Amino acid sequence: MPGGGSFVLESGASLAELRIAYQTYGELNSDKTNAILICHALSGDAHAAGIESEEEKPGWWNEMIGPGKAFDTEKFFIICSNILGGCKGSSGPSAINTATGKPHGLSFPIVSIKDMVNAQKKLLDFLGIQKLFSVCGGSMGGMQALQWAVSYPEEVISCIPIATTYKHFAQQIAFDEVGRQAIMSDPAWNNGDYYDGKHPVAGLAVARMVGHITYMSHESMEQKFGRVLKKKELGHEFSTEFEVEGYLRYRGGSFVKRFDANSYLYITKAMDYFDLQKDGELRHAFKRAKSKFLVIAFSSDWLYPPAQSKEITRALKMNGLDVTYCEVSSNCGHDAFLIEFEEETKLIKHFLGNIYKKLKEKKW
Amino acid sequence: MPGGGSFVLESGASLAELRIAYQTYGELNSDKTNAILICHALSGDAHAAGIESEEEKPGWWNEMIGPGKAFDTEKFFIICSNILGGCKGSSGPSAINTATGKPHGLSFPIVSIKDMVNAQKKLLDFLGIQKLFSVCGGSMGGMQALQWAVSYPEEVISCIPIATTYKHFAQQIAFDEVGRQAIMSDPAWNNGDYYDGKHPVAGLAVARMVGHITYMSHESMEQKFGRVLKKKELGHEFSTEFEVEGYLRYRGGSFVKRFDANSYLYITKAMDYFDLQKDGELRHAFKRAKSKFLVIAFSSDWLYPPAQSKEITRALKMNGLDVTYCEVSSNCGHDAFLIEFEEETKLIKHFLGNIYKKLKEKKW
Repeated sequence: MPGGGSFVLESGASLAELRIAYQTYGELNSDKTNAILICHALSGDAHAAGIESEEEKPGWWNEMIGPGKAFDTEKFFIICSNILGGCKGSSGPSAINTATGKPHGLSFPIVSIKDMVNAQKKLLDFLGIQKLFSVCGGSMGGMQALQWAVSYPEEVISCIPIATTYKHFAQQIAFDEVGRQAIMSDPAWNNGDYYDGKHPVAGLAVARMVGHITYMSHESMEQKFGRVLKKKELGHEFSTEFEVEGYLRYRGGSFVKRFDANSYLYITKAMDYFDLQKDGELRHAFKRAKSKFLVIAFSSDWLYPPAQSKEITRALKMNGLDVTYCEVSSNCGHDAFLIEFEEETKLIKHFLGNIYKKLKEKKW
Repeated sequence: MPGGGSFVLESGASLAELRIAYQTYGELNSDKTNAILICHALSGDAHAAGIESEEEKPGWWNEMIGPGKAFDTEKFFIICSNILGGCKGSSGPSAINTATGKPHGLSFPIVSIKDMVNAQKKLLDFLGIQKLFSVCGGSMGGMQALQWAVSYPEEVISCIPIATTYKHFAQQIAFDEVGRQAIMSDPAWNNGDYYDGKHPVAGLAVARMVGHITYMSHESMEQKFGRVLKKKELGHEFSTEFEVEGYLRYRGGSFVKRFDANSYLYITKAMDYFDLQKDGELRHAFKRAKSKFLVIAFSSDWLYPPAQSKEITRALKMNGLDVTYCEVSSNCGHDAFLIEFEEETKLIKHFLGNIYKKLKEKKW
């Protein structure tokens, strides 16, 4: 989406221009009623599905989006946009400030989940879509989905928050803060001004490593790694000895090649600020909501545990809303939303199919 | 304990001299049968109880050691020594290598929990103590206690492992590895050779912050911090905004003043190497054990969860050993062993009292 006009943020600050990178899959029908917005998580981007020629990697939710899949591109027009504050084409700290010709760095204002959603709304306006058939996302994507249902109740027919929460609790803030401290204590970070030189790759890698532990479960780590060694026996030295160490170092190392450290700061901050409960009881947050909800959680997710999804479900039900809660049994931890495609597909296909059918029959 | 003679490590490497700093509380009886060894955790030291004039801080387990306390200094002679590899007076990477007149740094060999215990055994030999009335420790101290019962079955009458495990699982190794990477990626670390200049305080602080999250529980973090802000409202900036951020930064900042980064590497490595199960089933590890055991775990400890203590208990029982397992209900997480003094005191006093009484009556 091209820039244009000033964009006011929740903090009161404003962006002189707003750029939102996006991809679409499937076709928008003539009355523009089949659009589904997919919201990505911390490290995701607009490339949710399909193969991109330049990198030849399938999108991050490729198994869920396509012909006959959960988000069926034969029926629906799927949109996925890079979040505000991200580093994959949308306005963010690494994007060029047209006023100076240099990256914004820390002069980019702090953004919130609500700001991300407002930016997505601008994109939909630009595309001429007045109403979303559905909005869905996992993890931070789920926060955006919930925020959509709260901010734009009339514009969201259905909402599918997955493996998410309604606010960041102290432990979630704590993990984010460790990641931020790892980045900010890397001398290469240089107060966010590093785009001309060495990037704070060491700090960002440590941040990613911490993150990865929270994305997996004790069980999945045991299954995948246990105490298996990379060599035949312990080397009695500080190099990578256990498989799990090698995996974390690899994940940290590959992440820094594709992600901007400042974006990591901004996005984790947005998650920490997220709090739908801030005006009192959680049910009050949803008093204007009108969507139909499918809330999905995963049994071994300890970053956003099922209990937090159950609280969301309860608050929605207290408002008399149509909500289905499903806890998927999985030992994959938080990452399950990027792994348990079979279960997710069944749940989502059925949920969307019912609404689609009723809409076609004009039962609403 | 003064140095003397070569000390051979589990790795095959050896130390030209061994120094172990220790403190004692209470008096050793004439037949030297009332000695109890207290083993400290990662960041602890020999100063387990009482007030030290120089720093005027009570010992780390002051509430547990003293006249009439769980470890009653009117009955028992309590010993606590700084672990091998530590930085509070015992041989370790920051200690002076007498051959060079400089700190060892990374030339100090990797040590194991078994090595720490063997070093403690040397201390007991030096003190003329042949048999321990009890050995007790929480967290890594519990690993040492278990290792004592395994390495020196004849020399340990009773053993009290608290909030501990029998091996490091993948997730525990992963958290340690993140801490090590944070330290090792700090340029000031300089491959362990920093004693003449700036220490890797930023990396060590991040390592400590990660650790602290694992020492608390989701519940205790909510109770203590929740989403409480340090200022009146969100500042939309990257300074400390939430209380939990301030707490972590404070903990990280105070830790680096009293702890050596290299010791952090060596000690976490020793924990990661710890695996009593490595020769097959866990019960085989205890086949020579003879002690009476009191195994204590805390309900909300997710670093070393009760399930791991139950496995220890089961393996001990499979060997027909006298073992009591107690799960203390607490929301303090792993740190509970440094907080839940009332419960611990009751359990330990009763356990030690019974053994003491029977020994006096010569029932064994």
